[in-house]
Amino acid sequence: MTTEGNPRDLIQSLERGFAVLLAFDAERPNPTLAELAAATQLSRPAVRRILLTLQHLGYVHGEGGRWTLTPRVLSIGQHYSASHGMIEIAQPHLLRLAEQTGESASLAALDGTEVVYVARVPVRRIMSINVSIGTRVPAHSTSMGRVLLGWAPDEVVDHVIAAGLTAHTEHTVTDPDEFRRRLRDVRSLGYSVVAEELEKGLLSAAVPVRDSSGAVVAALASSTSSGRSTVEQLRADVVPLLIKAADRISTDFGHRQSVTSGPNVRKGHEGFF
Amino acid sequence: MTTEGNPRDLIQSLERGFAVLLAFDAERPNPTLAELAAATQLSRPAVRRILLTLQHLGYVHGEGGRWTLTPRVLSIGQHYSASHGMIEIAQPHLLRLAEQTGESASLAALDGTEVVYVARVPVRRIMSINVSIGTRVPAHSTSMGRVLLGWAPDEVVDHVIAAGLTAHTEHTVTDPDEFRRRLRDVRSLGYSVVAEELEKGLLSAAVPVRDSSGAVVAALASSTSSGRSTVEQLRADVVPLLIKAADRISTDFGHRQSVTSGPNVRKGHEGFF
Repeated sequence: MTTEGNPRDLIQSLERGFAVLLAFDAERPNPTLAELAAATQLSRPAVRRILLTLQHLGYVHGEGGRWTLTPRVLSIGQHYSASHGMIEIAQPHLLRLAEQTGESASLAALDGTEVVYVARVPVRRIMSINVSIGTRVPAHSTSMGRVLLGWAPDEVVDHVIAAGLTAHTEHTVTDPDEFRRRLRDVRSLGYSVVAEELEKGLLSAAVPVRDSSGAVVAALASSTSSGRSTVEQLRADVVPLLIKAADRISTDFGHRQSVTSGPNVRKGHEGFF
Repeated sequence: MTTEGNPRDLIQSLERGFAVLLAFDAERPNPTLAELAAATQLSRPAVRRILLTLQHLGYVHGEGGRWTLTPRVLSIGQHYSASHGMIEIAQPHLLRLAEQTGESASLAALDGTEVVYVARVPVRRIMSINVSIGTRVPAHSTSMGRVLLGWAPDEVVDHVIAAGLTAHTEHTVTDPDEFRRRLRDVRSLGYSVVAEELEKGLLSAAVPVRDSSGAVVAALASSTSSGRSTVEQLRADVVPLLIKAADRISTDFGHRQSVTSGPNVRKGHEGFF
């Protein structure tokens, strides 16, 4: 993440406000002020003022000395989805893909060294992969990440490699040269299949989704487990379905783009993700 | 929204930061600094410092004089879901309900005078109701809102009525006395069916979801259109399915609650939503 401005231009209290908001999680669903101060390494008076401000804005609620996030927090993410037309357009195609494959279908975007699920259709199974919108996974060890990095500028790939290709399993590709070779393969094949590099038993396939200018702006993926499928089955059966679905999403988005705003209004893929 | 602290305790720059973040929407997916200043009624230098801070934090990205939200914004909502265990627990039950009814299934919580979708399984149809997680709808004219208000404290109902029972269609109940009668009916029946009070052609049924203490903490709903179903069919076929699904969600949540944290750790429904 780059900062164009002078560090003095940054607003410390805004940074601290987000730090407090993000300190609520599965391990700390309803923390005390003291727990939030410890988690953020801020003083208790500072955390108190932040909590009162967040409560005034309706994002947190305090009762009996404990604090919780309110559902209003979800509205922030809703602004992302509303301002990125492709998510809405992709939804019916994700549903169709999930029906065709019997597996969860996902759309993801790159954020630094991670990919973020921006749309998802889960499929009910005891073994189904349990992620929801906004969930982040490492880019280097997932098929979605390989696709997004495959078409990313060199400096983005360099950044991911410099951050370290962490071994999540014995199968994770951790050698930089080998990793770059895999990305070249993805570009020439037009898809990525990754087996058990993030988690034992987890297989996934992904393809690029392009905007009307041809730029890759998202990855469309289908995930399964080694108990239900194989790498060969993903290549033969799932990848062709992914390619068709990605084409349909791109076509629908290009169509709406030209209808609603005209090619001169949107530049490149701004507003796409 | 209440504020316990002195107004001087509120941090203005934090309020302004959220105002800028929420100024991005479907109408303004990639605004200029000037457009954001106009939308938030803040000065350009103030908006500039906020944008540079948000960019430093990775939530917005500026290029060619235009700004966009990044997918990192979705992570904020993800903290809400992660800290509210019931959303994860409800997901398979929503899927089963959507399969049984062939209609979208939703879980919603109350936020002031509105309900917020906190989990949802969409069903592919040209006519399907197009809402995603974090979407807000008025509480008074929806079955989910009627359920949540049916079991809410009096002051919450008073607040909704004081804010005005806006007529969205000719069928919206706008009379306060009639509205209170409807809420009493919901409580005695144990469910709500609302027809065309928010939108022509939109029908929905909802039931309460309770935590282990018996408190109503969410509404479980199924929506359809007047072309596909009737109020009588919703009552006869869908409401019994909703009641069963809500019971299963409550049971699963109560079970996990007692396994993971014990009844003495969680008080009331804190951490539930």
